[in-house]
Amino acid sequence: MADIENNLLNHIDSPDDLRKLKEGELPQVCAELREFIIREAASNPGHLGANLGVVDLTVALHYAYKTPYDQLIWDVGHQAYSHKILTGRRKVFGTNRIYKGISGFPKMSESEYDAFGVGHSSTSISAALGIAVASNLKGEKDRKVIAVIGDGSMTGGMAFEGLNNAGASNADLLVILNYNNMSIDPNVGGISKYFVQMQISPVYNSLKTKIWKALGKFKWIGPLARKMLQQQQQALKSVVFRKSNLFESFGFRYFGPVDGHDVVGLVHIFHDLKSIPGPKILHVVTKKGKGFIPAENDATKWHAAPGKFDIQTGEVFTTTSDISESPKYQYIFGKTIIELADQNRQIVGITPAMPSGCSLNMMMKVYPERTFDVGIAEPHAVTFAAGLAVGGMLPFVNIYSSFIQRSYDQIIHDVALQNLNVVFCLDRGGLVGADGATHHGIFDLAFMRNIPNMIVSAPMDQVELRNLMYTAQLPGKGPFSIRYPRGNGPLVEWKKEFQEIPIGKGRKISDGTTLAILSVGHAGNMVVEAVAKLQVHEISCAHYDMRFVKPLDETILREVASKFDLVITVEDGIIDGGFGSAVSEYFALSDKHVSVVRLGVPVRFVEHGTQEELYRECGFDAEGICRTVNRLIREREGDGVIERGRDMEKGRMG
Amino acid sequence: MADIENNLLNHIDSPDDLRKLKEGELPQVCAELREFIIREAASNPGHLGANLGVVDLTVALHYAYKTPYDQLIWDVGHQAYSHKILTGRRKVFGTNRIYKGISGFPKMSESEYDAFGVGHSSTSISAALGIAVASNLKGEKDRKVIAVIGDGSMTGGMAFEGLNNAGASNADLLVILNYNNMSIDPNVGGISKYFVQMQISPVYNSLKTKIWKALGKFKWIGPLARKMLQQQQQALKSVVFRKSNLFESFGFRYFGPVDGHDVVGLVHIFHDLKSIPGPKILHVVTKKGKGFIPAENDATKWHAAPGKFDIQTGEVFTTTSDISESPKYQYIFGKTIIELADQNRQIVGITPAMPSGCSLNMMMKVYPERTFDVGIAEPHAVTFAAGLAVGGMLPFVNIYSSFIQRSYDQIIHDVALQNLNVVFCLDRGGLVGADGATHHGIFDLAFMRNIPNMIVSAPMDQVELRNLMYTAQLPGKGPFSIRYPRGNGPLVEWKKEFQEIPIGKGRKISDGTTLAILSVGHAGNMVVEAVAKLQVHEISCAHYDMRFVKPLDETILREVASKFDLVITVEDGIIDGGFGSAVSEYFALSDKHVSVVRLGVPVRFVEHGTQEELYRECGFDAEGICRTVNRLIREREGDGVIERGRDMEKGRMG
Repeated sequence: MADIENNLLNHIDSPDDLRKLKEGELPQVCAELREFIIREAASNPGHLGANLGVVDLTVALHYAYKTPYDQLIWDVGHQAYSHKILTGRRKVFGTNRIYKGISGFPKMSESEYDAFGVGHSSTSISAALGIAVASNLKGEKDRKVIAVIGDGSMTGGMAFEGLNNAGASNADLLVILNYNNMSIDPNVGGISKYFVQMQISPVYNSLKTKIWKALGKFKWIGPLARKMLQQQQQALKSVVFRKSNLFESFGFRYFGPVDGHDVVGLVHIFHDLKSIPGPKILHVVTKKGKGFIPAENDATKWHAAPGKFDIQTGEVFTTTSDISESPKYQYIFGKTIIELADQNRQIVGITPAMPSGCSLNMMMKVYPERTFDVGIAEPHAVTFAAGLAVGGMLPFVNIYSSFIQRSYDQIIHDVALQNLNVVFCLDRGGLVGADGATHHGIFDLAFMRNIPNMIVSAPMDQVELRNLMYTAQLPGKGPFSIRYPRGNGPLVEWKKEFQEIPIGKGRKISDGTTLAILSVGHAGNMVVEAVAKLQVHEISCAHYDMRFVKPLDETILREVASKFDLVITVEDGIIDGGFGSAVSEYFALSDKHVSVVRLGVPVRFVEHGTQEELYRECGFDAEGICRTVNRLIREREGDGVIERGRDMEKGRMG
Repeated sequence: MADIENNLLNHIDSPDDLRKLKEGELPQVCAELREFIIREAASNPGHLGANLGVVDLTVALHYAYKTPYDQLIWDVGHQAYSHKILTGRRKVFGTNRIYKGISGFPKMSESEYDAFGVGHSSTSISAALGIAVASNLKGEKDRKVIAVIGDGSMTGGMAFEGLNNAGASNADLLVILNYNNMSIDPNVGGISKYFVQMQISPVYNSLKTKIWKALGKFKWIGPLARKMLQQQQQALKSVVFRKSNLFESFGFRYFGPVDGHDVVGLVHIFHDLKSIPGPKILHVVTKKGKGFIPAENDATKWHAAPGKFDIQTGEVFTTTSDISESPKYQYIFGKTIIELADQNRQIVGITPAMPSGCSLNMMMKVYPERTFDVGIAEPHAVTFAAGLAVGGMLPFVNIYSSFIQRSYDQIIHDVALQNLNVVFCLDRGGLVGADGATHHGIFDLAFMRNIPNMIVSAPMDQVELRNLMYTAQLPGKGPFSIRYPRGNGPLVEWKKEFQEIPIGKGRKISDGTTLAILSVGHAGNMVVEAVAKLQVHEISCAHYDMRFVKPLDETILREVASKFDLVITVEDGIIDGGFGSAVSEYFALSDKHVSVVRLGVPVRFVEHGTQEELYRECGFDAEGICRTVNRLIREREGDGVIERGRDMEKGRMG
């Protein structure tokens, strides 16, 4: 981009513009895209590594295929920056992951080029198959459907379910396996080793050459000859491989591995693959962080840019340290599980592909044999934990709240039904910020509380997190869920002696006379702030940190009922079915009328922004709480027409 | 068993007794087991086909392994009858699946031989790995862990997640792939074809022979020679297969296929396999229904015995026809989706491995190209449906309520977040009866209602089911959930013209003065019965069938609030977080006090029995409802001390 005049990217407002370029110009587009992405990420950090890895692949796909008619589905979708930039969002890319800006993930409502919304992993093959089958049913003969899936996402079981079904179909579907051997952390499991082996095996490589040589002739021969050639190839492959390839076991035709950074080569391959019907897989090898040396050298650190950074050196401009000030909840989790594991030899740690994201990597270093990264495999993670518990261990499973939705059945069927001692530490509980709608962990309080035997808790600060973790590993607790948010806790001083917390016991934070606010989890800190603000105006609210959504502290609830006729509940979670709902059930059952107004995440999908922006939007930041208190007081003192649902409705409308 | 004196089975009260027998006596034990199982099933129908298929395998396992020290984990577990009979439950086997009797599935609380409780599919490898790893951590060197999984369960993604992790571990784990090419219906997908291919491939079979010949020598050679031999074998396999086998791709050692009905052969194989460390898979071929000709010939029909039957002829003694009297909800679903598909070309039907169980097989016959059985793969089923919806189709996904727990994340992330028109028909919603705790579909009303954009409905009878299905496929509805129970609906006359039901609109069933009963779904019929009983005693209850859990009919709720101060909610689902909870939220938010007493499934796991027995146990059969009404009236008229939670608590304690 040194020479502004010759910049190609600046003239690409849609893939149509890209397709007007000559093949030979594509490497320049790739270089410009990389520069663009690095520059943007340096001032507005986002997923960097994966995006640099697929620049060439993305350019080749949009060049070779007729998007948006041809449907391109990105698995997980955090690697779609080049895709967004090439499909009309270059000029607004500065708003990436920013409140009211564009999403960090493909989103159908954002662009017709985003064929399917994503965020969680391993969905692309299933979605692509659905789209391809629909296309068949509508009689479309020419529409191509392409799913791009990383080897990390391939460890997720539903990817195999998709392969199994697609392989048995005649759907014209191309799955691109983007091999980079990383998810957030390096990939694990048998499959991962297998992919490496495929790549270094001379048999595979020699076969690859033969196939591509044959494919090269495809364009210049008639359909009959092509069919014969295909059959010959098939026969050749049968002899050499004898269904030797994992993907061919599922009924896919397999091609590759090929260099994922050779953009022109990829374009040729795609043109060739268009003439091959049925389900097929192309194995592409890329390097995460490609083109940015610091990211190439430390892919985990640069999975998402760790902060604003210097484009030349990769130096990260961090102003505050996570540890010296009020540390992150995840850091406290990491430190605490080691302390507990020191004392309790039964404790093991399990995480599905996010050891650094949840800080279980800290335990991994100290107790490698007692810490398990099972890959992107949430259902397995939970049932594996159940097996460990049956075998006498005490597993702590750390999964981001929104990802444990994948394990809902396993929690019920394998853990809770058998009343096993498994501790669920749900990181990223509540609104997570920039990752947006797909990643908000807003359902866990509601769906965990429905499950028999499950203890459902949420700490208000880091000391509480430590004490809940300590309590959860004491004998005879059964399934125990502890959820905490992304980001920093309120306390600077967190190193306190462990204290057991009685199950279902809340605590009073402050006394008051006007009404009571009941909170659970970190959101209680916003209540503290609100109570202080209201106090200035001589409005006195009692505040209880309930700690447990289940069992509820009925002693506190009786105390509240005896003093107040109005209760506000505050939680960083969906308000229908969650904590506020449990409190509503209690008071609806009692003989005295206590009104319950629930604050939290309204029952709609909330987009991305900073956590503070989203708390405000949903109306449970300190100001929102004050606003609700003031309105309720006015209504009580006013004409008697109480419209207590209004704030909730406002949240609903956004 | 003709000769009672020589009966072996009658003397087997534990596997220890079995292990005292000579190898040559094992075929007789198998024959006696088959006779026993058929005789029992003839008068007390249960899963028959799968159990007859694994008789020999079960006998061989308990004979060769030191159960319960060695841990035996049955995937799904409906095939564990022989296991139960051999492990001390022969004499109580007549209570199988009967209220207060033994469970139809392995259950840890029932026997130390049941190493892991099951019911849902594809969990065994994950659980077995957990147990094996725990055993390692405890320093046990000799404990063997065996998972038995059918090829049907192998289509479930979490089985692959388990394979992927186990294959990369050094856990001493044996996975037995029980190939019979059936789940409830014939299996589908690429994997299924692949398994067949493995079995007929001469390369596999010749290799198999070589391996077994080599293994035969294992016992008589020293450890060094054994190691060398192992290495040689490995090398041989590498050359021939070049990681050719699906399981070897995952890092497993693969053995087989072998005859699953050769009990002595299996014993020898197990003895040999004990000396081979690490994760290994044994591919066993069995025939579902083996030894009972009618079941061998029609495995789908005899998956579960279709009723009491004649042991000789297989003639089923059916007294009533499903169709002529008040038909089953599932039959109405099957008929109705065809009618709708006739009119609306966008409609497609999807089910994960239960076309006959949910009656989608009826549509499959009429519209084979628009009906999809995706195998045991609930997560895929939902995302595949999302893809179809994106492609312009209108998918009806039929999944049993308890199995759709597997798709919770996909419902949120792939369907609801994108507000796609996907209709979820949840068969077996509520207490299902004899299948018990693992199969009750009691969570769906609660977890569906938390999901933004989702319409949550439940019909009270077959006509309502038809009208809800009709309504759901009208334009612009978004995600739509319709749940209905196992078994017959109340109506004989169900063939009515379709009528659109306004979204969120309930209906008044009867007027009343004392209190209001709000119900949702089929449970409303028990309310009708209760209201009639109460009327005899001049107690007048209003009854509203709300139809929708979400959105709630607030017009009805306002009417109720204007007339009553006491409401009972009735639902065939968990009472915390579900329909009653939604009603509680509403009234807790209002300014007038209306007490809400929730009847339904208490927040504990409910065991098996007939549906009627379980409704009674949970206190929401007609008598239970009357009892609650009477108590509430007494309390209101009495001393003012209202303990409205008591019935719910009673349910809680069981």
